[in-house]
Amino acid sequence: MPQDSAPSLLHDTAPATPGEPPAAASRPVYDAAFDWIDTARAARHRAGLVRTLRPRPADSPLLDLASNDYLGLARHPEVTRGAAAAAHRWGAGATGSRLVTGSTELHARLEAELAAFCGFEAALVLSSGYAANLAAVTALTAPGTLLVSDAGNHASLIDGCRLSRARTEVAPHADPEAVRAALTGHDGRALAVTDSVFSVDGDAAPLPALAEVCRAAGAALLVDDAHGLGVLGDGGRGALWAAGLAGDGDVVTTVTLSKSLGSQGGAVLGPARVIEHLVNTARSFIFDTGLAPAAAGGALTALQLLRREPQRAARAGQVARELHERLTAAGLAAVRPDAAVVSVRAPSPEAAVRWAADCRAAGLAVGCFRPPSVPDGISRLRLTARADLTDAQLDTAVGTIVATAPTA
Amino acid sequence: MPQDSAPSLLHDTAPATPGEPPAAASRPVYDAAFDWIDTARAARHRAGLVRTLRPRPADSPLLDLASNDYLGLARHPEVTRGAAAAAHRWGAGATGSRLVTGSTELHARLEAELAAFCGFEAALVLSSGYAANLAAVTALTAPGTLLVSDAGNHASLIDGCRLSRARTEVAPHADPEAVRAALTGHDGRALAVTDSVFSVDGDAAPLPALAEVCRAAGAALLVDDAHGLGVLGDGGRGALWAAGLAGDGDVVTTVTLSKSLGSQGGAVLGPARVIEHLVNTARSFIFDTGLAPAAAGGALTALQLLRREPQRAARAGQVARELHERLTAAGLAAVRPDAAVVSVRAPSPEAAVRWAADCRAAGLAVGCFRPPSVPDGISRLRLTARADLTDAQLDTAVGTIVATAPTA
Repeated sequence: MPQDSAPSLLHDTAPATPGEPPAAASRPVYDAAFDWIDTARAARHRAGLVRTLRPRPADSPLLDLASNDYLGLARHPEVTRGAAAAAHRWGAGATGSRLVTGSTELHARLEAELAAFCGFEAALVLSSGYAANLAAVTALTAPGTLLVSDAGNHASLIDGCRLSRARTEVAPHADPEAVRAALTGHDGRALAVTDSVFSVDGDAAPLPALAEVCRAAGAALLVDDAHGLGVLGDGGRGALWAAGLAGDGDVVTTVTLSKSLGSQGGAVLGPARVIEHLVNTARSFIFDTGLAPAAAGGALTALQLLRREPQRAARAGQVARELHERLTAAGLAAVRPDAAVVSVRAPSPEAAVRWAADCRAAGLAVGCFRPPSVPDGISRLRLTARADLTDAQLDTAVGTIVATAPTA
Repeated sequence: MPQDSAPSLLHDTAPATPGEPPAAASRPVYDAAFDWIDTARAARHRAGLVRTLRPRPADSPLLDLASNDYLGLARHPEVTRGAAAAAHRWGAGATGSRLVTGSTELHARLEAELAAFCGFEAALVLSSGYAANLAAVTALTAPGTLLVSDAGNHASLIDGCRLSRARTEVAPHADPEAVRAALTGHDGRALAVTDSVFSVDGDAAPLPALAEVCRAAGAALLVDDAHGLGVLGDGGRGALWAAGLAGDGDVVTTVTLSKSLGSQGGAVLGPARVIEHLVNTARSFIFDTGLAPAAAGGALTALQLLRREPQRAARAGQVARELHERLTAAGLAAVRPDAAVVSVRAPSPEAAVRWAADCRAAGLAVGCFRPPSVPDGISRLRLTARADLTDAQLDTAVGTIVATAPTA
């Protein structure tokens, strides 16, 4: 073991195990098979690109502009009560694949309410948004299918493309004409895939134009609405609703239950025959344990709360626009937000890291994106607006970000 | 939409959405892009291979021999209280990637206790066992790496191999000499991957022999212990502990929190430098929201309960052996179980489906595996032993399975 390995990973508070440890001191050490990791690790250190886990306490004093809890529902007492009640009633786990013992009436109810809310015929809940994207991309393609994927798409869509047997063409970011060109001349099934709101810069995809281009070519459209659900569309019904595309027969969307809905999991929404096809063929659905009842119960409670208090969605967008306006007025290079993510450019990776650290030291948690996580090589702070931020908290956040900004 | 699509997917109990539905009757219907699904669906129907979701009520009267809740902990009041308490204290969701806001001290504690219990240096918790396998396989391989994968491996390991950039060779099932042959002559990094207990037949991999073969070739060994944790090894410490391999420098294991631990999630256990490498490079870890606190809290409580009541592990194995003995004595072709899964062969796919349905009608839930889910083409009932089955329940289960057995 390297002497200087990150202590946060060692968890040296681990209690002693009763019984004999299996590796006695006299046994040979079989380390060589992983010695290549030390080389990779040294390269990360030299490049200043080491990622470490920073476990937070339950009562963190930091003001949070880093999470994806856009509506402030993850710790809403009604939502946590919904999660806890589901654990009591249904158990701590789903106990099996959704196809065996892992489907409860709670899952079915969540799927029904989610589909109805977002305006789609049917929904399928999975254990994560990552799994939902793998399921949708792989089950809706086959060898010979053409996948056209936006260059700025989330890693889970990219991994879905990699895992599929389809041919993938990467289209320039947010460029419907490029998608049209990629689709032109292809004979057979085709699927265009895009984020609705791109997680790094918070910009929105041109969904109506993309749908038009797909329709002209007979292609289907898959939209990852992870950052749109709860923020965009009437009362937070999502980007597809906002674009007038929800429920259309050639449109499928994926959402997460872990952002605006404050819980865990993901879902695919679309025509009933698409959902039935996923049930029968999507490996990341079939070969996974069903979502835990507490996560389903938390998400369902959050969804019902959002239906009752639709103004939360508008407030998240309003906080984002206010953040953008005030940071821009202070001379910072913030990108105009289309949803609840506000991206602020930094002059260098080092400056971005220092800026985020200075914010943290001043009591403010912000995200920090830099190469290689950002395809365009631009480092930035990533701020997330929350519907439950007070005006005073917003003042504090803006003040801290401006006061710690790099002078370059 | 097909007229006869499965009603369970339509959830027609969905409440009406307030607001205008986006798709008014006068809008065009864009269905053609998914018309290929009807063809695939018709083929499934002709082959009798349609899978449908069957949501269960909270108080299902069925005797459960189908779930993976081997220790009967998913609904143990202490475990559900642990899950509920975590939701109240930490929130319904983790709110972000483990690298941003999604790591809590609860996750760190679960990782520490899990690593200590299983005898490994470090652990990393992910949102599912599927995600854990993708993470381990992809992060521990690179272009040029040789992956040697057992022909009976779980779909999530297979998908990990597909997603990796490594070259994969599939080795015949449970055959260390075949793994040796595959590794021979390869110049560079190599990783052998296997289930510890194969989920279809419940047979165990020859881990000591596999480790020896890997060591002779300088290869690392990755073992999916999803069905071993909680059942095999001293007090349920898992297959690697049982094989004397836990904590070795060239061995990595993945586990689920959703089977013996009755919750949701997965984990990778191994040397600290391996875990640190995953934190930095595993896309299914980095680009996913952290496991929900309730799932982490439920799993941690279950782990602590298992440490206190280690006899649960032995009881699961004992129930499995008793099931096997009694079914074999009744003339059925049951496979001798190495852990808690008991496989019973059926003469045909149709007979297996009918058998499982007859058991269900008689009040017993059993799993039913048949082509294409089983690579060897053999249809079987899959029974899972649970540590909390009473002798009377065992009598009932055996009686029902024997009474409904195909006469062929």
